[in-house]
Amino acid sequence: MTEIDVVVIGAGLAGLTAARALHAAGRRVRVLEARDRVAGRNHGDTLSNGVPVEMGGQWIGQTQTEVLKLVEQLGLKTFATYDNGEAVTLYNSTLTRYGDETFGLSDAAAEEVGRLQAALEALAETVSLSSPWASAQASELDRQTVDEWFRTNTDNPEALAFWDAVVPALFSAETAEMSLLHFLFYIKSAGMLDILVGVTGGAQELRVVGGTHQISERLAAELGDDIVTLDAPVHAITHGDDGVRVDFSRGSITAAYAIVTIPPTLAGRLRYKPALPAARDGLTQQIPMGSVIKIQVAYSTPFWRDAGLSGFAFSLDDPLSITLDNSPPDGSCGVIVAFFEGAHARIAGRWSQEERRASAVATLTKLFGTQAADPIDYLEQNWMEEEYTRGCYGGRLGAGVWTQYGAALSEPVGRIHWAGAETSDVWNGYMDGAVRSGHRAAAEVGARLDSRGES
Amino acid sequence: MTEIDVVVIGAGLAGLTAARALHAAGRRVRVLEARDRVAGRNHGDTLSNGVPVEMGGQWIGQTQTEVLKLVEQLGLKTFATYDNGEAVTLYNSTLTRYGDETFGLSDAAAEEVGRLQAALEALAETVSLSSPWASAQASELDRQTVDEWFRTNTDNPEALAFWDAVVPALFSAETAEMSLLHFLFYIKSAGMLDILVGVTGGAQELRVVGGTHQISERLAAELGDDIVTLDAPVHAITHGDDGVRVDFSRGSITAAYAIVTIPPTLAGRLRYKPALPAARDGLTQQIPMGSVIKIQVAYSTPFWRDAGLSGFAFSLDDPLSITLDNSPPDGSCGVIVAFFEGAHARIAGRWSQEERRASAVATLTKLFGTQAADPIDYLEQNWMEEEYTRGCYGGRLGAGVWTQYGAALSEPVGRIHWAGAETSDVWNGYMDGAVRSGHRAAAEVGARLDSRGES
Repeated sequence: MTEIDVVVIGAGLAGLTAARALHAAGRRVRVLEARDRVAGRNHGDTLSNGVPVEMGGQWIGQTQTEVLKLVEQLGLKTFATYDNGEAVTLYNSTLTRYGDETFGLSDAAAEEVGRLQAALEALAETVSLSSPWASAQASELDRQTVDEWFRTNTDNPEALAFWDAVVPALFSAETAEMSLLHFLFYIKSAGMLDILVGVTGGAQELRVVGGTHQISERLAAELGDDIVTLDAPVHAITHGDDGVRVDFSRGSITAAYAIVTIPPTLAGRLRYKPALPAARDGLTQQIPMGSVIKIQVAYSTPFWRDAGLSGFAFSLDDPLSITLDNSPPDGSCGVIVAFFEGAHARIAGRWSQEERRASAVATLTKLFGTQAADPIDYLEQNWMEEEYTRGCYGGRLGAGVWTQYGAALSEPVGRIHWAGAETSDVWNGYMDGAVRSGHRAAAEVGARLDSRGES
Repeated sequence: MTEIDVVVIGAGLAGLTAARALHAAGRRVRVLEARDRVAGRNHGDTLSNGVPVEMGGQWIGQTQTEVLKLVEQLGLKTFATYDNGEAVTLYNSTLTRYGDETFGLSDAAAEEVGRLQAALEALAETVSLSSPWASAQASELDRQTVDEWFRTNTDNPEALAFWDAVVPALFSAETAEMSLLHFLFYIKSAGMLDILVGVTGGAQELRVVGGTHQISERLAAELGDDIVTLDAPVHAITHGDDGVRVDFSRGSITAAYAIVTIPPTLAGRLRYKPALPAARDGLTQQIPMGSVIKIQVAYSTPFWRDAGLSGFAFSLDDPLSITLDNSPPDGSCGVIVAFFEGAHARIAGRWSQEERRASAVATLTKLFGTQAADPIDYLEQNWMEEEYTRGCYGGRLGAGVWTQYGAALSEPVGRIHWAGAETSDVWNGYMDGAVRSGHRAAAEVGARLDSRGES
């Protein structure tokens, strides 16, 4: 006899949506969260002028239907990311404005980028979303790194420099650090590359008024404090035929099933009794989290708009490699959101905050002019240092991992089920994928509870 | 005020040699070991006829001077691995005997293997052992996988098949799963490829009478039960300016310093308060352990010797890919030691023991004739399933990891120092490297104790 039906580990979108679905079905559920807040990789902060900004995952695309549905159900409002005017790209000290699909590259490089994109999307079509390891060319695609594929397929240095900025912008990791199969799976999981990269019509189209962390906050408020327990890092899961016992910092709880929603690398750090099978444990040894420091730089006005700029920029020259307009809906002040990604994040992570700010402001000044030199505020979030996330946006699979360990990503181990953005076949790594994974895990566990009459 | 000077986590060769050195210097030391035995990746078992066999690391080469010195100090005896007669290689269903340096390959493939080996060794010469990330061509070498390098440098399918067996035999991992820089570092760390692969004159030249686990057993006996505590898995390390507190399953202990000697991936699973810096934590997320199932197959006699065979064999066709003669010194029975490695180990790990045994015996029969079909005994050790090792022989670094995280392998974090075979610049991954790392960490901590007058 267990105390409850399901214990959920992690109060991010995956955990809270799983708990919500189970609770709505009449299951006794409890959510244990290590932090003193919910929302995991979503996190809200406030500029000194009171404007809320998103320090974690923030954008929602129109095809991210599950998270959009949730936003609506919870009474939150979305608004369009500012996307008027021209973008800029800085490469070899030359700043190029563009309003077309050239990404500000030379004609030859733009054409080459387009050719490579088409080739990648054609390859991505061959990947199985539900079982990437069973794709037709899985072993050939998984033995290559993304870096190897680009270098085998083009000699254009400008095109290479562009991809070497785009890939970290999408993964917070370098091209050599993931398998081609993983990259292709991710592209197909999102639909196509244009959707991943795009603002209007893409994954960066919408924002949530007040910030995305409110989705989790409202889910947690619905469930209530009796169900969602904060400051409760889990240490161990004992599991067997009769149920699970979860030991956390302030006690323990028994349940018929557990749903673990924390990133795989962190899930691997819990103590399991009995120990996990090699396939699952081996996976958790090699699905590292991305490296990103996200910054919000505030100005008294969104001055770049007056110059006809959208705020969207790539610098292929600088540690700060991508920026977008992140001003509040009323434009009452100007905010640029920007990222140190991958290798840049690892280097910038060793700097002081002052050094990061100075580096960021110098880059923004190159991109948007001298008005960028005097921000009124600067906020940053180094996700690599977050003990209970240890990197964003998510976990990636290096060469060989999908084909040899992929099945263990979401395959239950006894009464332990796995969720989280990394386990979703649609919008893997995104808020939408997290929500889908929560629903999937709740359905799995619900079906087992039903069939055994355990509840 | 702390209870002792140094707490050592892990009673393998690194931990016990560190403790021994500190104890000899008059330091108050304690070793906590998770298992009910010492010796970590060394482990002894006994055939049903009473003959001891090594289920973990077993061979010692003449240039492995630190472990040889230790063996002598502890009164253990070595003997030569049986290495008379011809070796065999099975490729495309053809069995080739050879007594020269061709590895049983066709002339063209043997020449190509030699050319590639020379190229690798020339590249390895450019690698810095103390700081691989600072090697002249570090970023170029670290962005490539070993798989990519081989495929870029040869089209000979037989030579490729050979390297695809040799690399897993050395690393328990596939060529795509590690960076070229890691492979080159490892070659230089051992001296050269011939030494890594070789029996006489190489890393497989000597065995220890009774088994290598006795090295740790004798070290532990010297230190005594008051110092070495078994069945004591460590859960958390709290550390600060004043010292460390280590919480283990049955209590806690305070010390001025800690030396953590368990593999990096397992070290990452302890809870640290405060949490570890991103550079160290990120490393532990991406240094997976190798995959190996080691088997010992016993026969009433070493019958292959009568046929003029040494027992050394490669099969490029089978899951069981490498074998050696592992008979006792008096030849009173015949023992073949063999390995499922890398991808083969991951597949064979899902089979039943009966299936593994049948597969192994079928391969041995192809290699050594029908007499191999009737073993008198079969022992196996699946290191991937070992909760407190989680893979052998050791941790490897994939593309990009050395250059971005390598410095964190042995750089202390506050009062926590790191040891273990993965942290050694000489004979990295081997028993000798483990011993060297124990001595290095003991010297580091000893110097800090001296300079602060803390002891």
